[in-house]
Amino acid sequence: MRSRTAGSVFLLVSLLCLALSACAPQPEQQAGMAAIDPLPSWNEGATKQSIIDFVNAVTEEGGPNYVAPAERIATFDNDGTLWAEQPAYFQLLFAIDRVKALAPGHPGWKTKQPFKAVLDGDMKALAAAGEHGLLEIMMASHAGMTTVEFEAIVKDWIATSKHPTTGRPFTGMVYQPMLEVLGYLRANGFKTFIVSGGGIEFMRPWTEGVYAIPPEQVVGSSIKTVFEMRDDGPVLVRLPEIDFIDDKEGKPVGINSHIGRRPIAAFGNSDGDLQMLQWTAAGDGPSFCLYVHHTDAEREWAYDRESHIGRLDKGLDQAEARGWTVVDMKSDWKVVFPWN
Amino acid sequence: MRSRTAGSVFLLVSLLCLALSACAPQPEQQAGMAAIDPLPSWNEGATKQSIIDFVNAVTEEGGPNYVAPAERIATFDNDGTLWAEQPAYFQLLFAIDRVKALAPGHPGWKTKQPFKAVLDGDMKALAAAGEHGLLEIMMASHAGMTTVEFEAIVKDWIATSKHPTTGRPFTGMVYQPMLEVLGYLRANGFKTFIVSGGGIEFMRPWTEGVYAIPPEQVVGSSIKTVFEMRDDGPVLVRLPEIDFIDDKEGKPVGINSHIGRRPIAAFGNSDGDLQMLQWTAAGDGPSFCLYVHHTDAEREWAYDRESHIGRLDKGLDQAEARGWTVVDMKSDWKVVFPWN
Repeated sequence: MRSRTAGSVFLLVSLLCLALSACAPQPEQQAGMAAIDPLPSWNEGATKQSIIDFVNAVTEEGGPNYVAPAERIATFDNDGTLWAEQPAYFQLLFAIDRVKALAPGHPGWKTKQPFKAVLDGDMKALAAAGEHGLLEIMMASHAGMTTVEFEAIVKDWIATSKHPTTGRPFTGMVYQPMLEVLGYLRANGFKTFIVSGGGIEFMRPWTEGVYAIPPEQVVGSSIKTVFEMRDDGPVLVRLPEIDFIDDKEGKPVGINSHIGRRPIAAFGNSDGDLQMLQWTAAGDGPSFCLYVHHTDAEREWAYDRESHIGRLDKGLDQAEARGWTVVDMKSDWKVVFPWN
Repeated sequence: MRSRTAGSVFLLVSLLCLALSACAPQPEQQAGMAAIDPLPSWNEGATKQSIIDFVNAVTEEGGPNYVAPAERIATFDNDGTLWAEQPAYFQLLFAIDRVKALAPGHPGWKTKQPFKAVLDGDMKALAAAGEHGLLEIMMASHAGMTTVEFEAIVKDWIATSKHPTTGRPFTGMVYQPMLEVLGYLRANGFKTFIVSGGGIEFMRPWTEGVYAIPPEQVVGSSIKTVFEMRDDGPVLVRLPEIDFIDDKEGKPVGINSHIGRRPIAAFGNSDGDLQMLQWTAAGDGPSFCLYVHHTDAEREWAYDRESHIGRLDKGLDQAEARGWTVVDMKSDWKVVFPWN
């Protein structure tokens, strides 16, 4: 339907052109067209140029690095790469909100860790509960309902909650320069995928509206679901059991399972993305690997080797050793968020 | 890139039209266009008409059953729905060929079941080995190599082996009428997926060439893979351990995991597809469910309620009760295979 519509528009425009007897584009117009900047929020420099050079290389028909459109797969981490991840992963904030909302039905949580910590807003006690405590909170908030119910819960939360320090909706905490990269790649025949450690069903309800990435192009961590035939029809029930962790060594596994092709471009911001970038770089043809380095404490946050969230340590060393692109947020980005 | 090309073609055609001073299409031309049969291998009748009626309904802009292109998801079972599955699932024939090819490196197999049965061509003994024996053969033939190595093995086998009774390449054992349905749906803005009990990595190396379905739109059963950094780079190793069975109750789970949207059209041929059809039919909007019924012992095979392969029993009852489309291969299809 789309291409038919596009065709009709072209038809109309060309008819109009002929009616006005001024159809052929003038040289200045053509030059003007070519000069449209596909990445206007990026400062000029080596970082921006590396993206443009790669896209030009793989789309140059007959060129030595040409890649057929079907093979133009680009994968993007989400937390810290497409949207912010401070002061905590947004999905953890969602889980905390859910625990609070569900607390009236679970009176025992008032005295039981890690739930007590969440209800008291005691982040130290929550941190002390460690990985196991976190898992309990994730399962209590993410399991025990149908997939349709969970989708509605996520849609409601993402539409109504606000980031704790900026007061913006979470979908406003996305990086404008990265939105431009997504659009630029798609305009050049790439298929863009999210490959995130975040929950696959926490992302899918809003990635299409925010990133123009449809659910079938989202890869993430998951809990088990099971088919059940109920009186009013079939449902998929979410179980409190981990199915797959799409992080570190899991990312190439998730890519292989969901996409079944090796990406030619991969974008991340932490050591959790390193194996995805290594897997991408190990392909036979041209490849492009990029790390977003959080260097801007004023407009966003500055953190890397020592951070508990989004640690970038080994990845930074490898990027330097292998000549991958490293974005210096402070100097490479004109704006960070769409509302800057 | 594609839509730009399509636009240019429209532009060219419209310019040509104007130059010839005969731009507006004449009524006869329009009628001629509309009369092009999208499903030429289907005999006229209720079955064919039900497919066309559904496509017309969901693509009629402003109509009561209109579905936006992004939501036009169609899922197809593979074995017995897109290609044949007799006298045995083709993937089992592949596994048997692999065991024979690997036998010189495993002298113990000569005396050890179920491998002895395979090497002796003793199908009775193989059947006696049961599900556990089959699993052993699948793991011996499908695991223990990297994903890249396995892809090469499948590509070689599919290019060189022949169907045991027709002598045709296995990729020639596809149903011409179903190829037309795939193309017809895609021409109407649908995204077509395979959702098969077969191995996801057994299908992906050839589905793009045969069905025009890319790897990222193939859902299937899988074994576990693990990321490994070797001296010459990263690999994904296939482990002899089942990860997911994409059959029966597993099909809606696989659809939810890989696609993340409910299909509006689903095509199957056996009770293994029933839950996929139920899940599809349970959507809020319009939906279309179709069973291919193998009724043609002359041109293909005839089997249903009692068959060990592709049993269609409960599904046939439900199709009748719920008014789903049931294809009678013998009477509905002008040809079965492309070479008929």
